[in-house]
Amino acid sequence: MNMTEPIRVAIAGHGNLGRGVEAAMGHNPDMQLVGIYTRRPPEQLRPRQPGTPVFAMETQPGHAGRIDVLILCGGSREDLPRQGPEYAALFNTVDSFDTHARIPEYFTAVDAPAKANRRTALISAGWDPGMFSINRILGEALLPDGETYTFWGDGLSQGHSDAVRRIPGVAGAVQYTRPVPAAMERARNGSRPALATREKHRRECFVVLQDGVEPGPVREAIVTMEHYFADYDTTVNFISAEELARNHAAMMHGGFVIRSGKTSANTTQTIEYSLKLDSNPEFTASVLVAYARAVHRLHAMGQFGAKTVFDVPPGLLSPRSAEQLRAGQL
Amino acid sequence: MNMTEPIRVAIAGHGNLGRGVEAAMGHNPDMQLVGIYTRRPPEQLRPRQPGTPVFAMETQPGHAGRIDVLILCGGSREDLPRQGPEYAALFNTVDSFDTHARIPEYFTAVDAPAKANRRTALISAGWDPGMFSINRILGEALLPDGETYTFWGDGLSQGHSDAVRRIPGVAGAVQYTRPVPAAMERARNGSRPALATREKHRRECFVVLQDGVEPGPVREAIVTMEHYFADYDTTVNFISAEELARNHAAMMHGGFVIRSGKTSANTTQTIEYSLKLDSNPEFTASVLVAYARAVHRLHAMGQFGAKTVFDVPPGLLSPRSAEQLRAGQL
Repeated sequence: MNMTEPIRVAIAGHGNLGRGVEAAMGHNPDMQLVGIYTRRPPEQLRPRQPGTPVFAMETQPGHAGRIDVLILCGGSREDLPRQGPEYAALFNTVDSFDTHARIPEYFTAVDAPAKANRRTALISAGWDPGMFSINRILGEALLPDGETYTFWGDGLSQGHSDAVRRIPGVAGAVQYTRPVPAAMERARNGSRPALATREKHRRECFVVLQDGVEPGPVREAIVTMEHYFADYDTTVNFISAEELARNHAAMMHGGFVIRSGKTSANTTQTIEYSLKLDSNPEFTASVLVAYARAVHRLHAMGQFGAKTVFDVPPGLLSPRSAEQLRAGQL
Repeated sequence: MNMTEPIRVAIAGHGNLGRGVEAAMGHNPDMQLVGIYTRRPPEQLRPRQPGTPVFAMETQPGHAGRIDVLILCGGSREDLPRQGPEYAALFNTVDSFDTHARIPEYFTAVDAPAKANRRTALISAGWDPGMFSINRILGEALLPDGETYTFWGDGLSQGHSDAVRRIPGVAGAVQYTRPVPAAMERARNGSRPALATREKHRRECFVVLQDGVEPGPVREAIVTMEHYFADYDTTVNFISAEELARNHAAMMHGGFVIRSGKTSANTTQTIEYSLKLDSNPEFTASVLVAYARAVHRLHAMGQFGAKTVFDVPPGLLSPRSAEQLRAGQL
């Protein structure tokens, strides 16, 4: 776009995701980070780039004129259901609301204030929901006579790690979700298998026990845990606190969207999209920043209200102009 | 969309691609194939579905009111440079113009008549250009500090097969382009290698010799051929006409778009999109049909002129409504 004025972006919330957005902003020179809003005392926050202004969250409504797009980096359970509708009345926003079942009601809650105030609010960006969602609907549209499979991993699952940590006697733990290679091969080869939960993914835990705790009952408590582990083949490894800190601190994740289908009787076509992420929050943040650029452009085009990744032309995510994209990137 | 009125689609040109569009139409019940236009005598054409109307190409201008979207299935060298601008004045169109270097001038040639006549003309759809292009620009937008690699194959290359067939003494031939696995691994691992042409792909030919022809000089003519084979490691296999017909008739193709980049100093993220196609023309045709749906909707929204895949929100390719997509597909 070769914009002379950078897009002014601010961050609401400075956890892993907010810090990831800070990092991503450094790779996008057409945007400028104009502020970080936090619920902590602002003087306690150390921005990645010294000199980035830090403000208390409650000062935000007064800053509407200074911000082109506000990236909401709070959680989907507590923060976004409140912040999304509230800030969509004041700012153009991007968020990563990821409670799949509640997306329709969240969309409605954000859409009304955004439309009433002529703002553009992109919800549920990231990789799932987000890039995986796009690949699921494109796969279905391009190969209607087919089947879609989503596999996650290898990846660290925060929710499952927390569940293990709550077991009495556990001093520390992480849980990895791993796709089963044989199931992925069946998904790819066009045979359209019906894959049970246990066939698609397995779970692997690395657990540190408190002093004097026996491993047997902890292992049993994990593998039989309803909703989390009972439906999976789960491996439990007991390790030292040092090994946990040394080898299991990275928030790696990723996954696969595989669509296989037929275009005529004997013709199988397979589309596969995959991510291999050293850092789940940093990648999600990178997606949010690219969509902040798109939101700024949609707003300039007069497209107000709530939007999802399904509503955004891919070209709007690129810093290049439409002419540049046609000349060099098609 | 649950449209009560199906989208009326017609096909211009009935080669491999046009026949693929016919096949794809059968998988999209929200669309109706209302005609096939051919330069051959219409009575000689056998449509896939008996009863599909077949017309002479020159009758087309008189049928503008009957067709919502015309899919141009001609070639990029001879047909589309003439047909694209001509038909964009009369119909909403979709085409697969794939001469990458000439896309900007083709866009301009189609844009003017489409705008002047309030038509929507989507150019250069398919998989490359097309789905691969989308993945190239998204990869760059999501991971600005990174490198993109496109690999093609395993796939039958029509142009290279033709080049081998033109060598004196050759009775028949096919050529496969194969990506080099070691190069793909280097592209994926984030080391951002500079990969020479010879490192990325190799070429494999299956050749039938005319009676009494010596293989040595034919092999030499192939592997030294400038622009086609000289820059590659090429394997030449001599086979019988029977084997050529039996094992090498399928128009398989595919490829990979790999983007690897860093979001912070020690964090590598890799995005990969791949296609494994039993039939190159049938998959390209499926893409064209999905974009025909999008073009019909863009036209209804008043978005006139030439468009590319970069301009189309992914949701418009799906037969589902935006509400349905948010509820079930995010």
